[in-house]
Amino acid sequence: MQVKAISSAANERFKYWKKLSESARACRKAGATLAEGIHLAQVMLEHGSDVRAVMIRENSATQEAMALAGELSRVCGAPVFELAPALYDAVSPVERGVGLALEVGIDVPDRPARPIEADALYLDGVQDTGNAGTLIRTAVASGVRHIAASPATACLWSPKVLRAGMGAHFGAVIYENVEPEDLRSLFSGARLAADARGGMDLFRSSGWERGRTVWMMGAEGPGLSERALRVADARYLIPIEAACESLNVGAAAAVCLFEQRRRRLAAR
Amino acid sequence: MQVKAISSAANERFKYWKKLSESARACRKAGATLAEGIHLAQVMLEHGSDVRAVMIRENSATQEAMALAGELSRVCGAPVFELAPALYDAVSPVERGVGLALEVGIDVPDRPARPIEADALYLDGVQDTGNAGTLIRTAVASGVRHIAASPATACLWSPKVLRAGMGAHFGAVIYENVEPEDLRSLFSGARLAADARGGMDLFRSSGWERGRTVWMMGAEGPGLSERALRVADARYLIPIEAACESLNVGAAAAVCLFEQRRRRLAAR
Repeated sequence: MQVKAISSAANERFKYWKKLSESARACRKAGATLAEGIHLAQVMLEHGSDVRAVMIRENSATQEAMALAGELSRVCGAPVFELAPALYDAVSPVERGVGLALEVGIDVPDRPARPIEADALYLDGVQDTGNAGTLIRTAVASGVRHIAASPATACLWSPKVLRAGMGAHFGAVIYENVEPEDLRSLFSGARLAADARGGMDLFRSSGWERGRTVWMMGAEGPGLSERALRVADARYLIPIEAACESLNVGAAAAVCLFEQRRRRLAAR
Repeated sequence: MQVKAISSAANERFKYWKKLSESARACRKAGATLAEGIHLAQVMLEHGSDVRAVMIRENSATQEAMALAGELSRVCGAPVFELAPALYDAVSPVERGVGLALEVGIDVPDRPARPIEADALYLDGVQDTGNAGTLIRTAVASGVRHIAASPATACLWSPKVLRAGMGAHFGAVIYENVEPEDLRSLFSGARLAADARGGMDLFRSSGWERGRTVWMMGAEGPGLSERALRVADARYLIPIEAACESLNVGAAAAVCLFEQRRRRLAAR
């Protein structure tokens, strides 16, 4: 494979990657993000993702990383760049990585003309990047591939969220900047609010899993916003011990989405 | 309330707190840790925790924080210190907090003479502090109050894990440095391994929830160690979509522990 060396911080490509690594807004604007590591690279190869450039860390990428770089370059036609260690470390989203990072195009789906007939997960103001990535991973693992996020939610394509998602992004369809009211035109499913403050008992109430659903999860601390609750068709409460206030949003979503999956598997 | 000012980095108390903030090992050795914020402080007041000192940030603690400091001083008899902002920020585990932090004693339970007749959660090498704290919170919310952790697991009393636990620590009984083989003498319950690599279908297998259980969860990436699997009585698999490799350990624990809770609530 052909490899171009980059050793100056004044290099235009380096400056562009640095911007992507620092700002979720820059990622959105550019329609691209950065991904680090063997696992994400393998997932992208499998999915035929839009890999735009391969970055390797000079003299320190592992053999496995180098082999993957070659394959990505061959399969995706992406140019390969060898960055001086200080430059690589400035753009890489992980501290001690394998020395392989990718610039990858973000797949922004068009808003559909009529509501999508699929299950979905809606994130209302989830700002922690680790939580956001884990939520996407949990949803895809539970069979829910459509993810929508409110404007206040972390940018789901930022390098940190991508990393926490462990590749689940590439099996998902992700809509960002979705206001709660937009959910009506985006998805056909019933909007089910997970709310620690009240609602029907998730386990004791029946029937909600039969049609398409849009599970709505709120931010750490405040939970779902008033606006989100207003568009909900029903509210559900996970019956936790009285001594506890609430679950982490990632744990709450795992409970709701896998209760849905359990019921549907049992009904087959 | 009486308040002592600390403005020098050479102050012995400050140096001690700085050590606690930087090193989980120092926390273990001292039998104390640091906790930040209104929520943790309220939980500690409710539980009558061993609060040893109250720290407030000079000229910047919120009114709510000051009121809580007074209450903690009165109820727990803890001395109150006002730290110069730079000193406070050096020991506080959060970036933009409310200006209230506590030094709190760690409750290390004795190893019991005979196995404990209670449900438990075992963490085998979970190193991410956010995951570890969320796991404690999820367990306590599901009614599982006994937590045990292998030596390779993050120190469960470190300030970061305490923060992610959102107060659940104070409703839990926490055993650290527990080797997998020690589980036999520590808990009477059946040891159930959550294993993404294989085992019985969690949802389709019945009966496991009837007796006491010790759910065993492994590290991100490798999963449960060979040693942990050897002491397991049974292995269970969460049926996820084929396209996904595994769930985040926090999500996996939420699914297992709340499936247990669901079945027990239904059997009442």
